[in-house]
Amino acid sequence: MNAQTNFDLVLFGATGDLAMRKLLPCLYQAHAAGLLHPEGRILGVSRSELSTEAFLQKVESDSKIHVKTHYTDELWQSFIKRIRYLTVDATKAETFKALGEAVAARPNTDNVVVYLSTAPKFFTPICENLAAIGLNSDKVRVVLEKPLGTDLQSSQEINAAVGAFYKEEQIYRIDHYLGKEALQNLLALRFANIMFEPLWNKKYIKSVQLTIAEQLGVEERGEFYDITGALRDMVQNHLMQMLCMTAMEAPASLDADAVRDEKLKVIKSLKPLTSADVDADVVRGQYAAGEKDGQALNAYLNEYQVPAGSRTETYVAIKAEINNERWNGVPFYLRTGKRMAGKVAEIVLNFRDLSSHIFEGSAAAPNRLVIELQPTESIRLYTQVKTPGAGNHVEVAPLVLDMGKAIEGRRAEAYERLLLDVINGKLALFNRRDELEAAWEWVMPIMENWAQAEQPPHEYAANSWGPKAAEELLARNGDAWHEAQ
Amino acid sequence: MNAQTNFDLVLFGATGDLAMRKLLPCLYQAHAAGLLHPEGRILGVSRSELSTEAFLQKVESDSKIHVKTHYTDELWQSFIKRIRYLTVDATKAETFKALGEAVAARPNTDNVVVYLSTAPKFFTPICENLAAIGLNSDKVRVVLEKPLGTDLQSSQEINAAVGAFYKEEQIYRIDHYLGKEALQNLLALRFANIMFEPLWNKKYIKSVQLTIAEQLGVEERGEFYDITGALRDMVQNHLMQMLCMTAMEAPASLDADAVRDEKLKVIKSLKPLTSADVDADVVRGQYAAGEKDGQALNAYLNEYQVPAGSRTETYVAIKAEINNERWNGVPFYLRTGKRMAGKVAEIVLNFRDLSSHIFEGSAAAPNRLVIELQPTESIRLYTQVKTPGAGNHVEVAPLVLDMGKAIEGRRAEAYERLLLDVINGKLALFNRRDELEAAWEWVMPIMENWAQAEQPPHEYAANSWGPKAAEELLARNGDAWHEAQ
Repeated sequence: MNAQTNFDLVLFGATGDLAMRKLLPCLYQAHAAGLLHPEGRILGVSRSELSTEAFLQKVESDSKIHVKTHYTDELWQSFIKRIRYLTVDATKAETFKALGEAVAARPNTDNVVVYLSTAPKFFTPICENLAAIGLNSDKVRVVLEKPLGTDLQSSQEINAAVGAFYKEEQIYRIDHYLGKEALQNLLALRFANIMFEPLWNKKYIKSVQLTIAEQLGVEERGEFYDITGALRDMVQNHLMQMLCMTAMEAPASLDADAVRDEKLKVIKSLKPLTSADVDADVVRGQYAAGEKDGQALNAYLNEYQVPAGSRTETYVAIKAEINNERWNGVPFYLRTGKRMAGKVAEIVLNFRDLSSHIFEGSAAAPNRLVIELQPTESIRLYTQVKTPGAGNHVEVAPLVLDMGKAIEGRRAEAYERLLLDVINGKLALFNRRDELEAAWEWVMPIMENWAQAEQPPHEYAANSWGPKAAEELLARNGDAWHEAQ
Repeated sequence: MNAQTNFDLVLFGATGDLAMRKLLPCLYQAHAAGLLHPEGRILGVSRSELSTEAFLQKVESDSKIHVKTHYTDELWQSFIKRIRYLTVDATKAETFKALGEAVAARPNTDNVVVYLSTAPKFFTPICENLAAIGLNSDKVRVVLEKPLGTDLQSSQEINAAVGAFYKEEQIYRIDHYLGKEALQNLLALRFANIMFEPLWNKKYIKSVQLTIAEQLGVEERGEFYDITGALRDMVQNHLMQMLCMTAMEAPASLDADAVRDEKLKVIKSLKPLTSADVDADVVRGQYAAGEKDGQALNAYLNEYQVPAGSRTETYVAIKAEINNERWNGVPFYLRTGKRMAGKVAEIVLNFRDLSSHIFEGSAAAPNRLVIELQPTESIRLYTQVKTPGAGNHVEVAPLVLDMGKAIEGRRAEAYERLLLDVINGKLALFNRRDELEAAWEWVMPIMENWAQAEQPPHEYAANSWGPKAAEELLARNGDAWHEAQ
């Protein structure tokens, strides 16, 4: 079905890291699985003066190594036949001419996907120059990569700039977390089953935890990371999307706007943070030196190209609240960090305790539902069961569904799924402008507070679960982070 | 803790099948696990003129082979030291004298357990003769084995006869299903977890299925079985207990009477069956010839010692209803059969369908909770999860908890647990008189209808899932048996 859409994919930033590591390997996978129209074409463009042959040599050396499965020489050779390279300078209108001709040469394509894997400052000139060669017709779709701005104002500027040339329904804003099967499955769990939704509210849920923990530090990317930080890199986008999918009301359908309307409602229902709230409910952390398996780990401040005295956060924990009937009073704890003791992305719903305990031990560990997005895709429902033998003691054991093992079928990488959705015109897994700006609006008070804070970030040892202040944030509510429970 | 109760266990019917196959091996297991008081003694009694030595030879040849785990010669030798044998004729008062002396010789025992593994017709003379030698004091407990009557009247007679000599709290009526860990765990699941109980009612449950399926036929027991039948053998006791545990309200505590009060309430809330109800909602079956793995299987009527033309049922299916706020309108399907295609005891809760379906395929298989008592002890919660890939299709996969694998700890056989509970004075897992009689009362209309029915039982092929009429019973309500779903 997918393979019936004949496309031209124009890839700005074709020589860049994302293109080489992710986009081209994912397009190869789609090709290998027969999901690309046989005539579908990839037009790599960037400022570099390269021939198609030279570009393909770079693809051969820099991209092919990222193809992890289903590789055969034959498939690879047929894949790269789809690729052309054109030199285009975003800011020079005349360099777009060849691109316009190349696209015009195939008038029968169903659509033209323009993927902007460039710095946001190039979005305006690129759109302007595309419009000048007619590439703003209804059959053009524009894909925007993060960072879509660094705050509310810059995000609005980018959206306005692109919006001047393209209608909202032509704009595909990537958040690759939405491409993850396990996150999509969260909606299936909630809305294709009768048994979870009655429990999914303040009456039964005591708190929710959303975690994206990385084990890596900033590696060689200190310079980029230092102007970004964890809040922009993870919270405003990925964690906010996890929050929306966890907290949203049932949409009337899975149509893009039905789902995005409900997500927007969640963000709009978040209790706005005052500066005092930020002091109380947000923990900013930065990793100090640490150790793992006997190896010393650098402090963030000693990482390559990190400026001396930087206060950039490598860790954030936030206690958020949603002011609606379903969730009022239930804390949603969001956290993300680099150099954490584990690599995990997960959603944890902590159930309330029973009001009465007729079994011994049942007060010790109220029910918990853990939806792990990575490293495994799994669902674990921690349940009290009877300890064998005389007596009426219970203990905890999980009901487990390991989706990788239980569910057959090809699991695409997030980027492959998203690229195919763009080609096929499915907007559901992309962020709408109002959603994105509402998310920026909500995090702005945090950024403003930090900009004026006297206190530096809380330190935490590399290879730990974050600063002590983040434990205390939960302890005040009688809660504890999942791994400490 | 258990091992602190110093007991004499007087075992009537000591040379019988149950004693050899189950009771003595289970007592050995309790001994091997250190759960029996070091001085605790087993006094085997029966009519047979045997010395203790001769009895022990019989134990050696007929019982030891049923010890399946934890056997060592040393433990076995120390176990059989607990055993004495006395010749006692239930109907001859003078033969009780030696028994009275043997028990009196150890005045410091905490209690005397009298286990009546005999035909019910001997209960009255045994109790009378025990009372005559003083063995009806408060420290005596009487264990009654099924069949406790063959209908309401005979059950009342037995209870009255024993009740003339013993108080209700001294009487332990065995239903070995209550000794099963998995059935006890059902109460833990329901009442030690916050997440199941909100779903456990007519709003979310469409139907409940309780199954005890055996693969064996009547083997050499045709003569006994033919006067019993599946209704008396399985429904009135085991299936009724499964029904009670599944349907009951939360007890205030796990004290024996708190639990038994709630079970009684369930039985009393069962919609009484008129004769017309029996015609419509009860299926009587008898196995015909069949085949398994290429081997021919006898029809029931051709089994050893089954009388020609017998109408005894080897299969029953019943659609029951519980008239209370929780369950009104939810069918409880009970069934049991011999020569079924599988050996399983399970409780299946079929959830209602969703009112709306935003995922494709979610209407195909509403949620289902399967609690398997045997062959494995497991919980499977059938859930809709997203099929990987593009699209919004869902498919079914279970969240699984295999308790044998997940929960450490020694799992006692049902009889061991029950014997230890008697020794330790725990009545919770035994049937109270009113419960038992209420259960008889409820099944009586079925027996009365069948006694006058013109139609013989429905035939079903040996090694099948029962008669077609039982499928139709469910189909009328839009339901299907679990294995056919």
